Amino acid sequence: MRSLLPAGMHLHYSIKANPMPAVIHYLAGRVDGFDVASAQEMALALDAGASPAAIGFAGPGKSHDDLRRAVASGVSVHVESDTQLRLVTALGWELGVQPNVAIRVNPDFQVGHSGMRMGGAAAPFGVDVDQVPALLRELETREIALAGFHVFWGSQCLHAATIIEAQRQSADLILRLASGLPRPLRFVNLGGGFGVPYFPGETPLDTKAVCDAMHDWLPRLCDGLPGTTPILELGRYLVGEAGIYVCRVIDRKMSRGRTFIITDGGLHHHLAASGNFGQILRRNFPVVIGNRPDAVARARCHVVGCLCTPLDRLADDVELPEAHIGDFVVVKQSGAYGRSASPVHFLSHPEPVEMLV
Amino acid sequence: MRSLLPAGMHLHYSIKANPMPAVIHYLAGRVDGFDVASAQEMALALDAGASPAAIGFAGPGKSHDDLRRAVASGVSVHVESDTQLRLVTALGWELGVQPNVAIRVNPDFQVGHSGMRMGGAAAPFGVDVDQVPALLRELETREIALAGFHVFWGSQCLHAATIIEAQRQSADLILRLASGLPRPLRFVNLGGGFGVPYFPGETPLDTKAVCDAMHDWLPRLCDGLPGTTPILELGRYLVGEAGIYVCRVIDRKMSRGRTFIITDGGLHHHLAASGNFGQILRRNFPVVIGNRPDAVARARCHVVGCLCTPLDRLADDVELPEAHIGDFVVVKQSGAYGRSASPVHFLSHPEPVEMLV
Repeated sequence: MRSLLPAGMHLHYSIKANPMPAVIHYLAGRVDGFDVASAQEMALALDAGASPAAIGFAGPGKSHDDLRRAVASGVSVHVESDTQLRLVTALGWELGVQPNVAIRVNPDFQVGHSGMRMGGAAAPFGVDVDQVPALLRELETREIALAGFHVFWGSQCLHAATIIEAQRQSADLILRLASGLPRPLRFVNLGGGFGVPYFPGETPLDTKAVCDAMHDWLPRLCDGLPGTTPILELGRYLVGEAGIYVCRVIDRKMSRGRTFIITDGGLHHHLAASGNFGQILRRNFPVVIGNRPDAVARARCHVVGCLCTPLDRLADDVELPEAHIGDFVVVKQSGAYGRSASPVHFLSHPEPVEMLV
Repeated sequence: MRSLLPAGMHLHYSIKANPMPAVIHYLAGRVDGFDVASAQEMALALDAGASPAAIGFAGPGKSHDDLRRAVASGVSVHVESDTQLRLVTALGWELGVQPNVAIRVNPDFQVGHSGMRMGGAAAPFGVDVDQVPALLRELETREIALAGFHVFWGSQCLHAATIIEAQRQSADLILRLASGLPRPLRFVNLGGGFGVPYFPGETPLDTKAVCDAMHDWLPRLCDGLPGTTPILELGRYLVGEAGIYVCRVIDRKMSRGRTFIITDGGLHHHLAASGNFGQILRRNFPVVIGNRPDAVARARCHVVGCLCTPLDRLADDVELPEAHIGDFVVVKQSGAYGRSASPVHFLSHPEPVEMLV
């Protein structure tokens, strides 16, 4: 990513994709900042040595306690409603600090191609574009300088042209919103949205095309907003392909002519791989037998977890080398939204162990 | 349930529905035993004072450690494969105890009505009926007495006639499997499957009809298996309607003409209510504003959680009394598969607190 991004484009890591402290510490020296979605994620970023000014806190439901901690820490609070703005300004007075306020905007443009359109809808995230002027007036009244804008248009997109169009439109929207501001912005966050291929038929994002296209629109943004740092925030894209999930085969059985490979893992460790996290139609994550990477595929089977529920499926009707008790089932593309996005207490089995290697 | 069940029918609580220790302790004096799906659930049942012989341990993926603890404790291990049976007998020798073994059977009958058929399919659960004789021979060879059979045909069924038919067929299957056994069985577990209405249009199960019908088939089962205890195992049905989920409204905002009620709760506390746990089409759990139970419904809104993801929806497009910051959103029918079935670490927000009142 670094070699592809134009000079001047900052890169943030969205901690929600994988909040493992070791991952955050590893990335702390490799990205320019963090985006966080809760006070605890903010604490993880601060603990990793990130500068508060390089941390952006977004989220439609920030509690009073979240906002108090954010204002006290000096991180950028991406306000997403007039309620949040009022609380932040009151907390600034109460704590005796000038709050660091950005506005998260619900974009009014729509991008996408066949079957997948993003943006332009009613949403709990950010404020609608037509509500931004009122927030700007409120900030002026309170004598608070706006630190930046945050535009998040979508996620898990594998289509370069869609991302390019969304980034162009985000830049235009930001230029429109920023025109006439009394003071320069410190940053503008253009969102992320870079996807990771999970399922058969999906192809990796052409990241080079996306970054090349930045040379078209980024100069225009930077010329219009001198001294303002543009930020790209990536979560899943940075860690998703870097992680694998490993579980052990503990049984192998036949039922009515079908072979079931039963593991000591399952949906309590990896809900997304079970197909129960945002998928409409269940599809298999890429699965291999980790201790026999070179074996020739030989038989169709169903890989399931150890839980007593039909939801606990890791791979339906896949062709794999014949797996035996003691073998390792490896689910690839599991570095993002794994343990932290799974019901680890379900059925009270042992929790997964995370390791950075 | 107690007043409806025929004399002699034992009632077990399936801990997986809600493993909160206070719930298990409360139920310990009110049920005849527990069904558990992991070694930790087994420990919870034993800690609540249950007799090991009144605990049944089912699950398609029992680890060596699970089985060792189960054999050592003397609970009934519901073996679901020849692997499990071999491990249990080996552990019995190693530990110097006679293992308490039941066989979980994947039923060969199919029940149901329009659109919902259960049983009769290939499954990782239990052993197919045609594999039972081999397991019985293995037990004979090892000189281990079979404690019982366990037949689990389905779950979350609201249709009394389907349950009645499944119970009748389960009884017939058990009688068939048990004919010619050298020793009487200690128990037969007929599964559960009693559902709880969650969604608009669903009607409560006619439990009385189900229990009345037991007077037809239960005497036949008991006459065929003198001295054997029939067990009904219920999880969700006993606790699902006894629990509510409460979160607080922390914001209220408009986006493109729609009203969003934003709470400090969400899918990290209650995945099922968000529609991401086994639902194909998302439907709303019953939701009310808890501090205004008598208010007249006045406005349509969308109730969401605090997480930065479009998956975090608690109620889509519902008619509710106008909710304001500080009000309580209450999700009913939340006593089962709530906290323990939710990704509590997702986005690192505070975990839900459970209370038995």
